[in-house]
Amino acid sequence: MIPIDDSPIVRDGKTLILAMDHGLEHGPVDFEDVPEKLDPSTVFETATHDAVTAMAVQKGIAEGYYPSYEDDVNLLLKVNGTSNLWMGEYDSAVNCSVDYAAEIGADAIGFTLYGGSNHEVEMAEEFRDVQEDAREHDLPVVMWSYPRGQGLKNDTKPEVISYATRLGLELGADIAKVKYPGSSDAMEHACKAAGDMKVVMSGGSKTSDYEFLSTVEAAVNAGATGLAVGRNVWQRENPTQILDALEKVIYDEETADAALEATE
Amino acid sequence: MIPIDDSPIVRDGKTLILAMDHGLEHGPVDFEDVPEKLDPSTVFETATHDAVTAMAVQKGIAEGYYPSYEDDVNLLLKVNGTSNLWMGEYDSAVNCSVDYAAEIGADAIGFTLYGGSNHEVEMAEEFRDVQEDAREHDLPVVMWSYPRGQGLKNDTKPEVISYATRLGLELGADIAKVKYPGSSDAMEHACKAAGDMKVVMSGGSKTSDYEFLSTVEAAVNAGATGLAVGRNVWQRENPTQILDALEKVIYDEETADAALEATE
Amino acid sequence: MIPIDDSPIVRDGKTLILAMDHGLEHGPVDFEDVPEKLDPSTVFETATHDAVTAMAVQKGIAEGYYPSYEDDVNLLLKVNGTSNLWMGEYDSAVNCSVDYAAEIGADAIGFTLYGGSNHEVEMAEEFRDVQEDAREHDLPVVMWSYPRGQGLKNDTKPEVISYATRLGLELGADIAKVKYPGSSDAMEHACKAAGDMKVVMSGGSKTSDYEFLSTVEAAVNAGATGLAVGRNVWQRENPTQILDALEKVIYDEETADAALEATE
Amino acid sequence: MIPIDDSPIVRDGKTLILAMDHGLEHGPVDFEDVPEKLDPSTVFETATHDAVTAMAVQKGIAEGYYPSYEDDVNLLLKVNGTSNLWMGEYDSAVNCSVDYAAEIGADAIGFTLYGGSNHEVEMAEEFRDVQEDAREHDLPVVMWSYPRGQGLKNDTKPEVISYATRLGLELGADIAKVKYPGSSDAMEHACKAAGDMKVVMSGGSKTSDYEFLSTVEAAVNAGATGLAVGRNVWQRENPTQILDALEKVIYDEETADAALEATE
Amino acid sequence: MIPIDDSPIVRDGKTLILAMDHGLEHGPVDFEDVPEKLDPSTVFETATHDAVTAMAVQKGIAEGYYPSYEDDVNLLLKVNGTSNLWMGEYDSAVNCSVDYAAEIGADAIGFTLYGGSNHEVEMAEEFRDVQEDAREHDLPVVMWSYPRGQGLKNDTKPEVISYATRLGLELGADIAKVKYPGSSDAMEHACKAAGDMKVVMSGGSKTSDYEFLSTVEAAVNAGATGLAVGRNVWQRENPTQILDALEKVIYDEETADAALEATE
Repeated sequence: MIPIDDSPIVRDGKTLILAMDHGLEHGPVDFEDVPEKLDPSTVFETATHDAVTAMAVQKGIAEGYYPSYEDDVNLLLKVNGTSNLWMGEYDSAVNCSVDYAAEIGADAIGFTLYGGSNHEVEMAEEFRDVQEDAREHDLPVVMWSYPRGQGLKNDTKPEVISYATRLGLELGADIAKVKYPGSSDAMEHACKAAGDMKVVMSGGSKTSDYEFLSTVEAAVNAGATGLAVGRNVWQRENPTQILDALEKVIYDEETADAALEATE
Repeated sequence: MIPIDDSPIVRDGKTLILAMDHGLEHGPVDFEDVPEKLDPSTVFETATHDAVTAMAVQKGIAEGYYPSYEDDVNLLLKVNGTSNLWMGEYDSAVNCSVDYAAEIGADAIGFTLYGGSNHEVEMAEEFRDVQEDAREHDLPVVMWSYPRGQGLKNDTKPEVISYATRLGLELGADIAKVKYPGSSDAMEHACKAAGDMKVVMSGGSKTSDYEFLSTVEAAVNAGATGLAVGRNVWQRENPTQILDALEKVIYDEETADAALEATE
Repeated sequence: MIPIDDSPIVRDGKTLILAMDHGLEHGPVDFEDVPEKLDPSTVFETATHDAVTAMAVQKGIAEGYYPSYEDDVNLLLKVNGTSNLWMGEYDSAVNCSVDYAAEIGADAIGFTLYGGSNHEVEMAEEFRDVQEDAREHDLPVVMWSYPRGQGLKNDTKPEVISYATRLGLELGADIAKVKYPGSSDAMEHACKAAGDMKVVMSGGSKTSDYEFLSTVEAAVNAGATGLAVGRNVWQRENPTQILDALEKVIYDEETADAALEATE
Repeated sequence: MIPIDDSPIVRDGKTLILAMDHGLEHGPVDFEDVPEKLDPSTVFETATHDAVTAMAVQKGIAEGYYPSYEDDVNLLLKVNGTSNLWMGEYDSAVNCSVDYAAEIGADAIGFTLYGGSNHEVEMAEEFRDVQEDAREHDLPVVMWSYPRGQGLKNDTKPEVISYATRLGLELGADIAKVKYPGSSDAMEHACKAAGDMKVVMSGGSKTSDYEFLSTVEAAVNAGATGLAVGRNVWQRENPTQILDALEKVIYDEETADAALEATE
Repeated sequence: MIPIDDSPIVRDGKTLILAMDHGLEHGPVDFEDVPEKLDPSTVFETATHDAVTAMAVQKGIAEGYYPSYEDDVNLLLKVNGTSNLWMGEYDSAVNCSVDYAAEIGADAIGFTLYGGSNHEVEMAEEFRDVQEDAREHDLPVVMWSYPRGQGLKNDTKPEVISYATRLGLELGADIAKVKYPGSSDAMEHACKAAGDMKVVMSGGSKTSDYEFLSTVEAAVNAGATGLAVGRNVWQRENPTQILDALEKVIYDEETADAALEATE
């Protein structure tokens, strides 16, 4: 953890990451109801919204589309990831070097760590290299901290999520992205376990506007510094509207109710 | 994905790759009916046809034969591959470094990725290195994107082929080579899943002229930017004739019927 | 082993390491009764005590907190470690390079070796690199020498602890941190097995003041050059008081009784 | 494959390699009847025969004995090999770097590839490095192409030997050394499968003069460019005599009968 | 093998290596009857005897003690080794780089190879690097050539020991250290299998003066160039006396009887 409040991916101490690596991690199935979103440009357009401090994509999409958006979008290059065709123990291939990410214009680096996987040791060592390379380029590092694998059944239990944020702090991340542990108290504990490191909530699969916004509200109140979200934005009919609402909840710390009312 | 329309392996936005790595991947059995084709010169001769934008071979054949054809043929060096004596889970040895491929005169790099194999993570990391080395040399990268391995029975199902093209896009290929998913609609979806990245259909085992050309026609109509073909050209008695027909289907977007008629 | 008596982590030939890597190794569970200690600053404050010659933390905590304490605390960067979510055979990821540790300002390097683990050979080779890199930076190396793994049931048997200190000596550590082998005689043998290399006792889980101090007294009398302690200091209500007492036992070689009396 | 007709290991387009790596691959058992041949000097003396274009040995023997023979013998450094104490799946350790081989004075490099072994992929990647390093030093590469391992029972079947030569061509060898496939026709097919790459027959275990020479004659007539032989030369009482005969069969393309008659 | 007769570890063509890596390989158990020998200085003192041409230790002991003895003792740095807490197939961690060994002042390098182990291939490749690095520093290499592992029950059978010395020769060692194969004839064969490379007998566990010396006498008569010995020297009450006797047997080629008589 180094000071990143002056980094482009932070706005007023908060962060809203729009993620679009689902084509790799989940495959075309995530686009079934929104086939037009197979075109990454559509999501980059959405990412030009002021609320979005960074767009998270894999190398190939960054190479192909970021040149058209580099003035309007901050790039968070997610440097590892694996298809769900993979049948082995949880693991994630490092698909992009930090040097190349920097060359493409990345403003930050993203990395998934599966704590508890039989590949945890190997992934932690890959994280070491990625984190230290990122330091060379003065790039913040966001850890997708997702404990899972042999022996970990329910990966959103409070103690697991607090362990997840702590792993981010101990190993040198600047922001940890974790799943919501189910309650405001548990989220608060997870944020405390992170010390001064920032924690963002993972958006998860698509839910109703209210349910989604009130979870974000609870997370922010519990100390989260924002959100990393994909499907709950770009699978919606009107991504701009939900981003307007998220902007109010995250940056203005308004309630979900107030934010919804103001943006409907 | 980077812009490759000005690359030598693209002609009018289209691509026709003549592949001849069967001696490695399949062994002498593919030459049983055409033993004279064991001599790679014969196929290089065929590759001088205007319709062919690149010839795909392994390092050894490039070293030995390309010097005689470098004025007339563009070289796509396939940098990985494995014999079918291999009994293990799907994998592919990296047989050539990109630096050496460039030294030999390669105009593009080819790489097989078996998504879903127990070696997927390792292969994706090898692809990372190959792709980034290719960027250093300004060489386009063609991914043979072939999901297969434990848990993947039918590897030409539409959702598998769309995942295959998407893997190419996400991981940074410039062209993905995939099997025909069985219908024009499925091919169209696979091309959409690739965003702006080019998709070429894999030629597969030898079929009749009409069957072959009409599949190519369907693929091109569905958005494919061309074909990568081996046996359906060089196992034929008259490779020039089928290339004449392919030229019409791919570059002039004529029907299979018209192309056949014009070239018979 | 090289001469380290002039190193900042040694005071009058003795060493007291305050360790706080429990957030990684044990997880939030170790903070259940002292949630305020989730904030690493609180332990760094404790480490400013004169008795403490070094504070042992992982990379992320060093990066985030050491800049505020570098004038008052010596940094021992623990370069490997693994979460207890890990279900595999005992192993430890190398989370920090020695070069980066030096850049952060480390005064010494810490490394865990699980002798007897099925990863022993691999860990010993990682230790080689770490130790030789540390020599380049003139940094002392502390080995957490913890035999455990397949076939090792009771890892505090006298012969195991003597083997543990000897491994430190043979492989090139400057200090070995080992568990107390249960008796003063066994500790004396373990110190003899270390030759001229320093041995520090591991603090272990929290016990009563008297029990803890008298074990330290026994260890020091047996030849140990000090202590590496975490929970027995920072899980206490008054860490300063126990450090006052430890200072007397370790540096002044007073009895536990005398030290307790003087500090209560 | 690059042009090697001007290389010292080729004479009039032909090659006769005298191999003596049996001490590593087979152990002292191969010397039971000829214990004096345990002294490598004896075989180097034999290698000074004009018929021999290269002597193939491992690093240690090259280091120790080649300095005395460098004016009279061409050195083929066999850079991998494994003892038959090895009980694992077919594999071969890379015992010498190409740089060091060149420093010792090697005129060519030898490498074993076990196609079909569960180590095929790994060996092919080691071959890549060796082959490309050899190119840096302008050294020809001879592949001992020996398909064997799980699933390959009879490794001299015609289709296996043709696959073996083809592997050499595709992967970038300059000469492939293969076992005789049992018939002249099969050998001819194997040579055709190699394209313009040279093929040498493997000498195998000791047989009668006539049987041995007539197999060589058949191989040469079928297109082989020579022989790599060990036991059939140095296990003989009079190695010079058999080399005289081989010279006639290989370079003068005489029959086995004529060669035997002329040299007896 | 390179000429090493002028190396400091050779005296009149003979070698007597005093080894003290038992603290790593066997653990404190080897010191049970001689606890004072846990202090490596005691053995370094012994190594100042004129008969000793080199002292073999691991990195840590070399670092810590050799500076006091560098004028009187030649250092053989044993760069690999593993504790007997290790329960896996025979293997040995490379604990010291050759560069660092040279920096510490090593006069020679020692390396264990377990031929026949499932780690043989990996160890042979580690040996390659060590041997070639040693050549850069002009340091002789001693191979502890110990066939053992899956399928090798009795590792002192004559054919195994002859294979062991041959492995040393083929792979590029300058001296092979092997167990005594049980008879003078077998030892003679093992020395012949080594060609011009030197062979030293391994001392083994402690035996009577006469038994020990007469085995050494037999080995020297059979062609061995000396001895590598640990316990049979430093576990004795009077190491100097046995070294006096060994000096006569090894360098003066006296009988065990004569040597014993002269030194008692």
